[in-house]
Amino acid sequence: MTEALNPIEWKNDALVLLDQTKLPNDIVYEEFTTAESVWDAIVTMKVRGAPAIGVAAAYGVYLGVRDYKADLDQAALVNEVQKTAAYLATSRPTAVNLFWALDRMTAVTATDASYQDALLAEAKAIHKEDEEINRTIGENLLTLLSDGIGILTHCNAGSLATSKYGTATAPMYLAKEKGWNFKVYADETRPRLQGSTLTALELSRAGIDVTVITDSMAAMVMSQGKVQAVIVGCDRVAANGDTANKIGTLSVSILAKHYGIPFYVAAPTPTIDLNTATGAGIPIEERHKSEVIEGFGKLTAPADVKVYNPAFDVTPAEHITAIITEKGIVRAPYTENLKLLMRDTI
Amino acid sequence: MTEALNPIEWKNDALVLLDQTKLPNDIVYEEFTTAESVWDAIVTMKVRGAPAIGVAAAYGVYLGVRDYKADLDQAALVNEVQKTAAYLATSRPTAVNLFWALDRMTAVTATDASYQDALLAEAKAIHKEDEEINRTIGENLLTLLSDGIGILTHCNAGSLATSKYGTATAPMYLAKEKGWNFKVYADETRPRLQGSTLTALELSRAGIDVTVITDSMAAMVMSQGKVQAVIVGCDRVAANGDTANKIGTLSVSILAKHYGIPFYVAAPTPTIDLNTATGAGIPIEERHKSEVIEGFGKLTAPADVKVYNPAFDVTPAEHITAIITEKGIVRAPYTENLKLLMRDTI
Repeated sequence: MTEALNPIEWKNDALVLLDQTKLPNDIVYEEFTTAESVWDAIVTMKVRGAPAIGVAAAYGVYLGVRDYKADLDQAALVNEVQKTAAYLATSRPTAVNLFWALDRMTAVTATDASYQDALLAEAKAIHKEDEEINRTIGENLLTLLSDGIGILTHCNAGSLATSKYGTATAPMYLAKEKGWNFKVYADETRPRLQGSTLTALELSRAGIDVTVITDSMAAMVMSQGKVQAVIVGCDRVAANGDTANKIGTLSVSILAKHYGIPFYVAAPTPTIDLNTATGAGIPIEERHKSEVIEGFGKLTAPADVKVYNPAFDVTPAEHITAIITEKGIVRAPYTENLKLLMRDTI
Repeated sequence: MTEALNPIEWKNDALVLLDQTKLPNDIVYEEFTTAESVWDAIVTMKVRGAPAIGVAAAYGVYLGVRDYKADLDQAALVNEVQKTAAYLATSRPTAVNLFWALDRMTAVTATDASYQDALLAEAKAIHKEDEEINRTIGENLLTLLSDGIGILTHCNAGSLATSKYGTATAPMYLAKEKGWNFKVYADETRPRLQGSTLTALELSRAGIDVTVITDSMAAMVMSQGKVQAVIVGCDRVAANGDTANKIGTLSVSILAKHYGIPFYVAAPTPTIDLNTATGAGIPIEERHKSEVIEGFGKLTAPADVKVYNPAFDVTPAEHITAIITEKGIVRAPYTENLKLLMRDTI
C-alpha cells in the first residue's frame, strides 16, 4: 500500500497542505502560518474542494490573529477576527463551505481558555466533523449502489477535496472494503484536470479500477451501457435543490437524464445553503483564460482569442435523482425536504 | 489581412501540407513525395479532417507509383496502385472520405496520357471538387441561419480540414462576407484540441467573433441562451443518418436536444456512406492514451492509469435537425431522403 495522501493537516502549530497543483507528479507538502498565505493557497488551488477550502479557511482565521495575543484587548481581537474572516471570504465565491466555516469562526467567543485557543479548537472541530461526515455520506450512498456497476464521476470530490474518504468517492472506498467488483470512469475535468490528476490518482492508489476519459467521452461511455450511476460532489446546494459544482457537471446531468442513469449529489450539510433560494442566486466564479489556453506547456489557441472560463455551473434540481447527506438521503420535492433535513441539523 | 493558411496544396511536383500539429504557434509547411510519408502525416494528424484526409490520400496514391514509370508494364502498375491504396487505407478507419478517394484513384484507367498522369489528374480533380462543394454547403447552411445568432461548433470542420471555406465553417465565412453580426463558440475539443488550436485560429484570423470554451462548458453557454444553432462536420454518415464525428459530438447533440437548439451536420456527399446501414457499423478509431494524459507537457494522471480514448462517436439520426450537403438539405426520414439524394449524385 502506498503512503496515504493527506490534503490538510494541523501539525507543529502550522497548517500543512498537500500542494494539489503539483499532483500527480510531485507530492509536496507545504506549511502555512499566515492568513495571507492560506488565502493565496485557496486562490491558486493548492487546496481545493468545497469541504477542504472550508477547513483551510478556518485555520486561516486562527493563523491571522494568533500573533496578536499580547497586543490587543478582547474587543480589538474580535475585530481582527472579523477582518481576517472577511478577507479570507474573498478568496473564492462559489463554494458555500468557505462562508459556513468562516461564520463558525467569527461566532467563537472566549472561554476559560484564551480566545485564540478557542479559535484553534473550533478550526480543529470543523476539521474533525468533516472526516466523520464523509464516512456517513459514503454509507448512505452505498445503499443506492450495487456490486458490479459502473460509476461515472466528474472533478474530484475525493479524499483530496475533503478528509478521509471524500464525499462522492466515499462509497467507492467502502465498496472496495466490501470486495465489490466495480468500475469508475473519471472525467478528466477541464480546464484544471482534477479528474485525471486527483481522482484517478487517489482511486488507483487505493486499488480501485478507474479509467480516465475526457469530459467529451462521458456520453459515449453512457451510450455503451457502461455507467449505472453518476456521483458528483457539490460546492453549494440552493434551497430548491439546484446544485453548483465544477463546470461540466450540468452537462453530465443532462447526459445521465438522457440515458436514464441516476444522478447522485454527495452533499455534506455545510454545503446546503437555505439562504440562497435557487441556483440563479449562486455566484459563479470566472477564472483566467490562461487555465484554458496555456495549461499545456504551450499556447493552444491564438493568444488574443476570447475565452470564457466559468469554474462552476448549476445543475437544476430536476436533474438530480437524490442528494446524499450525512443526515440522510434527500429526494424531490427538494424545497420541502431540504428544509426538513436542515431543521433537524441546526 | 493575415496570410491565408493552406492546409493542402500540390506544388512543385509534391504534396505540401500545413503541419496542423504545430498550430497555432508555428506555421510550418512540409513537402511530401512518398506514399509512406503521406500515410505517416495522416496517422500523426499533420493533416486531418475527413475531406483533407481524402485529398491527401489521393495524392499519396500517385506519389506511391510515379517512380515506377519506366520499370513496370501497365498491369503491374495497376497492381501497385491497388497495393498503395490498400496501404493508405490503413492510416485511419473512421472517415469514409479516405476510402471514397482511394476508390476513385483505383478506378482510374490509363488514357491517352500516361497512367500516372491520369492518376495525378484524378487527385487534382478530387481536390478541386472539395473546394467547390464547401462553398455550396455554406450557401445551403446559411439559409438556415440568421443575423445576430450564436453558433456552437465542435472540433474543426473548417478551412483547415478541407479546402477554402471548410464545411461547418463555410456559412460563418459567408455570413461574415454579408456583414452579419454573430458569435461563434468553439469547443476546445479534447484530447487533440482542434477547436482551440485550429477553429479559433482560422476564425479569428478571418475577423469572426469566436470564443473558446472547454467541451464541458457547452451546456452552460446553451443554458444561458447564447447558442441558437450547433453546426458540426462529420467523418461518416450512415445510410440511416447516424453520423460519426469527433468524440464529443454525441454529447453536444444531446445537449442541443435538451435545450431545443437545432443541430446541423455539414456533410459533403463523399462523406455519406450508403454501404454502412447504421452508426453501429462505423468503425471507431481508438488512439493512444498519451493523447489524453501526456498532452500538457507533463503527465496529468498516474502513468499506469487506464485511459479510454475513442477518437470519434456516433450521433443518432434522431438528434440531427438536418444534414446539409452540396446537393441540398436533407431532413428525416434520413434513410429515404439520403437514398434519394445519393441517387441524384451518383
